Amino acid sequence: MLNVSIAPDGKKYPLPTEQENEKEREILKQITAEQRKLGRKIVAVQGLGFVGCVMATVVADATDKDGNPYYFVHGHQRASKRSFWKVPVINSGIPPVASSDPEVPEIFHRTVVEKKNFRATSEESVYGLVDVVVVDIQLDATKPSFGEAEKGYCDLMAFREGIRTLGQHIRPDCLVLVETTVPPGTCEKVVKPILEEEFTKRGIDIAANPPLVAHSYERVMPGAKYVASIRDFWRVFSGVNEKSIELCREFLSNCLNVKDYPLTQLDSTNASELAKTMENTYRAVNIALTLEWASFAEQIGVDIFKVRDAIRKRKGTHDNLLRPSLGVGGYCLTKDPVLANWAMQTLFGLEGCLEMAIRGVNINDTMPLHTIEIIKREYESLNNLKVAVLGVSYLENVGDTRHSPSKTLVEFLRKEFATALTHDPYVEAWPELDESKVESDLNAVLPGADVVIFAVGHDQYKGLKPAEVVAICGTKPLIVDCSNFLSDATIAEYKKLGCKVRGVGKGHIV
Amino acid sequence: MLNVSIAPDGKKYPLPTEQENEKEREILKQITAEQRKLGRKIVAVQGLGFVGCVMATVVADATDKDGNPYYFVHGHQRASKRSFWKVPVINSGIPPVASSDPEVPEIFHRTVVEKKNFRATSEESVYGLVDVVVVDIQLDATKPSFGEAEKGYCDLMAFREGIRTLGQHIRPDCLVLVETTVPPGTCEKVVKPILEEEFTKRGIDIAANPPLVAHSYERVMPGAKYVASIRDFWRVFSGVNEKSIELCREFLSNCLNVKDYPLTQLDSTNASELAKTMENTYRAVNIALTLEWASFAEQIGVDIFKVRDAIRKRKGTHDNLLRPSLGVGGYCLTKDPVLANWAMQTLFGLEGCLEMAIRGVNINDTMPLHTIEIIKREYESLNNLKVAVLGVSYLENVGDTRHSPSKTLVEFLRKEFATALTHDPYVEAWPELDESKVESDLNAVLPGADVVIFAVGHDQYKGLKPAEVVAICGTKPLIVDCSNFLSDATIAEYKKLGCKVRGVGKGHIV
Repeated sequence: MLNVSIAPDGKKYPLPTEQENEKEREILKQITAEQRKLGRKIVAVQGLGFVGCVMATVVADATDKDGNPYYFVHGHQRASKRSFWKVPVINSGIPPVASSDPEVPEIFHRTVVEKKNFRATSEESVYGLVDVVVVDIQLDATKPSFGEAEKGYCDLMAFREGIRTLGQHIRPDCLVLVETTVPPGTCEKVVKPILEEEFTKRGIDIAANPPLVAHSYERVMPGAKYVASIRDFWRVFSGVNEKSIELCREFLSNCLNVKDYPLTQLDSTNASELAKTMENTYRAVNIALTLEWASFAEQIGVDIFKVRDAIRKRKGTHDNLLRPSLGVGGYCLTKDPVLANWAMQTLFGLEGCLEMAIRGVNINDTMPLHTIEIIKREYESLNNLKVAVLGVSYLENVGDTRHSPSKTLVEFLRKEFATALTHDPYVEAWPELDESKVESDLNAVLPGADVVIFAVGHDQYKGLKPAEVVAICGTKPLIVDCSNFLSDATIAEYKKLGCKVRGVGKGHIV
Repeated sequence: MLNVSIAPDGKKYPLPTEQENEKEREILKQITAEQRKLGRKIVAVQGLGFVGCVMATVVADATDKDGNPYYFVHGHQRASKRSFWKVPVINSGIPPVASSDPEVPEIFHRTVVEKKNFRATSEESVYGLVDVVVVDIQLDATKPSFGEAEKGYCDLMAFREGIRTLGQHIRPDCLVLVETTVPPGTCEKVVKPILEEEFTKRGIDIAANPPLVAHSYERVMPGAKYVASIRDFWRVFSGVNEKSIELCREFLSNCLNVKDYPLTQLDSTNASELAKTMENTYRAVNIALTLEWASFAEQIGVDIFKVRDAIRKRKGTHDNLLRPSLGVGGYCLTKDPVLANWAMQTLFGLEGCLEMAIRGVNINDTMPLHTIEIIKREYESLNNLKVAVLGVSYLENVGDTRHSPSKTLVEFLRKEFATALTHDPYVEAWPELDESKVESDLNAVLPGADVVIFAVGHDQYKGLKPAEVVAICGTKPLIVDCSNFLSDATIAEYKKLGCKVRGVGKGHIV
């Protein structure tokens, strides 16, 4: 199956042949010409991941006062086995991402099928045809050593290759709008030089045609308001020169709801890139802070969540205070502080370390060990302990397992020879944990359990009756609540059934 | 002058003789009896410091629906040379604290002179006459080693003695309401046992008459809304038993504006004490975070204050983000994290350290060194450099020098043999820095200056014209803005005059 890309639903899509690519190039030219005749500008979105594919629909969906679309959007995804399937799936009007937001399937259908101004392709010559490229290439931080984010770095290889592809194809007056969260300094020190290099190779005079590079970061929130979190929300932007700033402002003003959420322009792309990473670091550090206090609170009989509610009464000064849980997952808070620290040391060659940021990431990355500590307060050894882990995604009510703290929990439980069985109503296989099976039936994980960990606060778990759980277990398991979602009444029921109940930050149970 | 207490205005007050104390005891009994006849309950406030003296007026000022005061308030201050003067000053209707809040002198005059239901005394037998004691004894953390808050501790000696005095005098049914910010655990592990011990010595059966101890913390903000910040603001409280909780709720409901700011009850005094220290730690940690990013921003040409504004657009999730400056001063953020860490390790004997909290305090305590670093980017050596430090208080537009970061700045400048001259329109002498003189005339500090540091953002400094400053200097000094208060236009003027301008977090100047 060398040349096939398999979609999550199992459907197989052969990768395009050179002949098909040849044909596709003609189609792209033809479509683009037709769309230009309709007075539309042409946009490409580079990378159809979690942000890119929805951003593409938002751009395509934007219309002028008369209801005419401003843009035709080419979504570009390389013809890799891992991702090519997205191209035919999108072109059938179906979103390549699962979401609880009903607007997601609607906006894909509307732009692809009805308006016909969004189309995906794997053919990179598309970049030669467009006025704007929105860069949404994925970029991750690598943390080679657990709990030592100070050793983390950012491998820009794929990102640089993506930008080089643009430099080889784009028209000199094309705006390159970087939307990916990048290490501060990337537009100035990586994107611009690569484009200049490729322009020069192509004989373009970069003094007369300096590359037009801008940066604007999204603030996507997964969940029920996925589309709105891209379109109807505050945006920060900047550019490497006056013209790129102007083009970026015009583009964002056309696509986004800037009437209700006016744009914020910063002085440089350095500033805009730094803002994004600082924004997420702020949250990462605040979560880290709460874990220390949760642990203290647990041991002196205090419920940290009630304390948090008391503190957050002070609106505007104290209401951002976050909460502890099993740990911190997802794609942003786990890496953005590392990107910034790495940029400071490497892209800018500065001394020092963003200590609060890095310490915060380390506390967050190792936070799941705290739940193991809670268990160890009750059991001397984890050896042969049977532990049911309920919830393996990184967030309530979603199936996304990227950087899920449950992975750390399960790994460390197994390291100490506990038997950890996993359950999640939204996850079938766990790619980050050797594609291991995740049960969807509680009967497969609860019987005989010594410990039941409510790791993620999925709504389904909130509905579980203590009597039911204990009956399936056939034991009197230790109940561990990582998400403050067992009510005082539920806890009392478990106790009545002979179970001990413990929880992250839940000292009132002790 | 062994037996004289000198007020800040220089007026001398002889300490009371034993004969006068004898007489005072009779007066206290008589006043109290008269006030009880008027249907008023009797309150003592222990400690007439920054919080205690204003809290006493708020309690005295509270009235029922018919406009009758609920309480008569005895303010108690020990007859020490340092503080006795407050007693006669208060009894003349004058506040013992300076404040920009016009309500402060009004409420003192109204309660002492007009309503005549607030009176100060230095006679501790007063505690035997009252229904409620509000404890406002000062309590500080000691940090024996600069930049190593992990070695900090809390000396409870004076606090314990104050509580012991209560135990020796109060009626068994008197509510002891601790308002001082204390290490978590203090009410349960310090206050209650001392009262029990003293009760038992007095033959009181503590099984039948358990001491009534409650905790509620103020959220005083110095400045223009001093009184309102005590009376018209959210309060958190708890008590060591049902009765103390009930009495505390009743007392606070009578005195404070609980209609607009309903009380929050927590499960235990441990929780309430922890909430207060966590609340301030949250801010201390967030300030520490901003310094790291300010330093990064400075070096890559980014203005961190504009970045902050961009991030804070996200109300409710990001708008608590604080800002860097010369450093963190005052009485709360510098010590509360240390109190909590010390309590965890000592009062509760727990392992570990509140690392984010302690690291935050260390960054904040050493933050003034960053301003010295900024100077060192321009001057190789500080030796013989003439530095004018404008502002030595810890906050804009107040004269309070407690834990002022300017102290660290000046000490370290002098350590490296710079000549640091200090100026402040609100401060005459600097008790924390060997009572050294602080100039109020810029002509005494600016002439010949190599560096002018705008250390504190007093309004008076904002009005200074660059041409005027440079003319008085007679040099082209390096201007350092620690508080982001020089506008871009002012900075441009300084540059036109030949001065370099630098600032904490102000990379756009570079």
